[in-house]
Amino acid sequence: MRHLLSTRDLSRDTAIGLLDVAEDMADTQLREVKKLPTLRGKTVVNLFFEDSTRTRISFEAAAKRLSADVINFSAKGSSVSKGESLKDTAQTLQAMGADAVVIRHPASGAPQTLATSGWIDAGILNAGDGTHEHPTQALLDAYTIRKRVHGAASRGKDLDGLAVTIVGDVLHSRVARSNVWLLTTLGATVSIVSPPTLVPVNTSGWPVTVGYDLDEAIAAEPDVIIMLRIQAERMRNAFFPNSREYSRRWGLDDGRLHQLRATTIVMHPGPMNRGLEISAAAADSPQSTVREQVANGVSVRMAALYLLLSGDREDA
Amino acid sequence: MRHLLSTRDLSRDTAIGLLDVAEDMADTQLREVKKLPTLRGKTVVNLFFEDSTRTRISFEAAAKRLSADVINFSAKGSSVSKGESLKDTAQTLQAMGADAVVIRHPASGAPQTLATSGWIDAGILNAGDGTHEHPTQALLDAYTIRKRVHGAASRGKDLDGLAVTIVGDVLHSRVARSNVWLLTTLGATVSIVSPPTLVPVNTSGWPVTVGYDLDEAIAAEPDVIIMLRIQAERMRNAFFPNSREYSRRWGLDDGRLHQLRATTIVMHPGPMNRGLEISAAAADSPQSTVREQVANGVSVRMAALYLLLSGDREDA
Amino acid sequence: MRHLLSTRDLSRDTAIGLLDVAEDMADTQLREVKKLPTLRGKTVVNLFFEDSTRTRISFEAAAKRLSADVINFSAKGSSVSKGESLKDTAQTLQAMGADAVVIRHPASGAPQTLATSGWIDAGILNAGDGTHEHPTQALLDAYTIRKRVHGAASRGKDLDGLAVTIVGDVLHSRVARSNVWLLTTLGATVSIVSPPTLVPVNTSGWPVTVGYDLDEAIAAEPDVIIMLRIQAERMRNAFFPNSREYSRRWGLDDGRLHQLRATTIVMHPGPMNRGLEISAAAADSPQSTVREQVANGVSVRMAALYLLLSGDREDA
Repeated sequence: MRHLLSTRDLSRDTAIGLLDVAEDMADTQLREVKKLPTLRGKTVVNLFFEDSTRTRISFEAAAKRLSADVINFSAKGSSVSKGESLKDTAQTLQAMGADAVVIRHPASGAPQTLATSGWIDAGILNAGDGTHEHPTQALLDAYTIRKRVHGAASRGKDLDGLAVTIVGDVLHSRVARSNVWLLTTLGATVSIVSPPTLVPVNTSGWPVTVGYDLDEAIAAEPDVIIMLRIQAERMRNAFFPNSREYSRRWGLDDGRLHQLRATTIVMHPGPMNRGLEISAAAADSPQSTVREQVANGVSVRMAALYLLLSGDREDA
Repeated sequence: MRHLLSTRDLSRDTAIGLLDVAEDMADTQLREVKKLPTLRGKTVVNLFFEDSTRTRISFEAAAKRLSADVINFSAKGSSVSKGESLKDTAQTLQAMGADAVVIRHPASGAPQTLATSGWIDAGILNAGDGTHEHPTQALLDAYTIRKRVHGAASRGKDLDGLAVTIVGDVLHSRVARSNVWLLTTLGATVSIVSPPTLVPVNTSGWPVTVGYDLDEAIAAEPDVIIMLRIQAERMRNAFFPNSREYSRRWGLDDGRLHQLRATTIVMHPGPMNRGLEISAAAADSPQSTVREQVANGVSVRMAALYLLLSGDREDA
Repeated sequence: MRHLLSTRDLSRDTAIGLLDVAEDMADTQLREVKKLPTLRGKTVVNLFFEDSTRTRISFEAAAKRLSADVINFSAKGSSVSKGESLKDTAQTLQAMGADAVVIRHPASGAPQTLATSGWIDAGILNAGDGTHEHPTQALLDAYTIRKRVHGAASRGKDLDGLAVTIVGDVLHSRVARSNVWLLTTLGATVSIVSPPTLVPVNTSGWPVTVGYDLDEAIAAEPDVIIMLRIQAERMRNAFFPNSREYSRRWGLDDGRLHQLRATTIVMHPGPMNRGLEISAAAADSPQSTVREQVANGVSVRMAALYLLLSGDREDA
């Protein structure tokens, strides 16, 4: 693997391979071998143009467990905020010997630009770009689903035949986009439930069905329901329902929780707005995988860093 | 030791044991063995909801000397500042595999909440919570006093018979609270000297005598005098003396320095307001332990991390 | 070497020795031995009173490749911003066991103060102080020039006979000052080209010629031209040309690029204002060493840290 930019261009075999490596990583953690020497001497730069402590420390923990050196580069207060171009930043990191750059950027496509520009040889990991993609989030979601469904026998498995419903502000959600492509590639059937004003304008090329009614979607008995996070700052937008309305129509409240089959998996990328898009009872129920998702995030990011930075990369 | 939340619930034996381990840690540093492999593979998270560079880097230095991985999590600009609950933050850190969480929080009791909630298995170290406690500061003060008094023969010793006077804004001071309990447990007699408006309303359960006159307290010839830091932002409060008045009545100025016995130990938790609660001459005098306190802080924090994260913890 | 405070007081032999060690460091990086155990157990503190992500991560990368522990101490939001004195900060770092302090400070002379105060034993590296010096930038510039001119045979060499022109806001530039002294010591002839209002008032003691006309300077066929960064915030100053005027008269635009000899080296300390002091074509031309400068910066800083922290230091 040379870069990890999106899930749209991941093949089924590559995706399953990455999930399998992530399981190996998780196993080493369980055996209390918390520190692997694999990436000793490699430098991973967390290049964050948007704040995201959770994602940053997940990547940081993953890199450190593989014995890489981690350098955090927050764009705030840096020469980037003084107008330095992405090109100059990239060339600086290249010259400093960065082996991998984990980038979060408000502009959709920034990681792709880095990867294809020739400015930098490092492996590029997209940690969220604009409203485009957030591939490691989708990979950890797929990992979590696969593990719940197949348990100890999950290696090599896909998500064939599973019905997944994604609920919320799909329009602005890179998590939704990455999940749509990855889960479909892995064999799942994906549907979206969203307020009408928050469906992307053109979903005609997407392998999804679009609906507006959460109760209807729940009645269809999905295997997995993914509740997206609501960004409070969007609530001020005229095309956005207010929070009471949102919660009533598109929130997974206690009533809807009881309508779900007991085996339906409840997911959320975090951080949750308890009482808004998800009730406390739903968040903490045995069906919820919120905590597993965070733990699996470290394993998946270890796998991605490993695949980008180990010897195999040169062969690609 | 499972957590370190307060000094009030520390037994005399536990406290002396921790100080003894801290001496071992200090000895390894002196022998130029600056890096111990003890906590290799363990992850220590510095979870700071309030800025405190000094305390943060003291814990960071302590953890790194024990070969732990350190992840700094400042609540500023994180999802915490977007309203994420302490519960979700804790569960995130748990899922990421944090072995210890060093927490500083503006709310009294937050570390206790973390430790008893079941949200997280990690050992919790209180690095200052509201106006409640700051236990490692009191432990490093006790360590410093013990070392000054007993020198090379300090292992196993307590502070029996010593008279300690704490001077300043006790009302808002978690350092004062932690010291009151710990120093008393270790056998010292503690008195407080404070502006009348800055004594906690109810000190009836405290093992201290309360006074308002610093000169009287100095005339009583204490073995140790601890000058608390004045928070400039409180000076605007009507119940707070202005800085000239404060300095004149409760500051350790040069005149009062000369009234102290030559053997009286002068302490300050730092950072000092030179010329306000303590004069430059007092801060830099041979009686002052300000620098030793900082150095001992690293040793004490190494000991606390070691006791929380080494194998012994599982047996507890 | 005890400290690295300025290039003005570096002897020719010391400077060449440091450049030679930097070449050794670069060689180990090329041989894919990215992590050297040399400074294992040493603690390097990055004490930054001004933001500078680029310089900070260059030092951080250098220290980590030598296996030192790195602690980042940004003055923002720390007790320093609450008025703690440099003295108290220094004594805190001393007590915490810092072996080297990399300091950037808005006040000229702050690193010198630290080094000579007796407050702290650590080796002090000046990473930029006011408008005074930025010695590692000059060293990496000298390294870059030497490498371009002498190639594989550069060890032990100086810059004898080379003509170097420094262009821009010399008045406020610590990079210019450090380069003037170092490059002269190494045998180069240095000239300055600057808007008349941006020449330091008293350059009578400087080993330079001063000019105001860039085209004239280019006609003199320098071996090296160093374009200084323009600080946008100074553009509001009455004595500063506006940006169009600046660019037209003192910018290295495409026309002037073509007037340069093909062998003239084009340098810039970064981050560049493309289109202002340097055109994109000039920045990206084969004559430009901008990227090499960044890479060489890590090698030079590894060398400086090594010389300050290795055993030899005690002998000095």
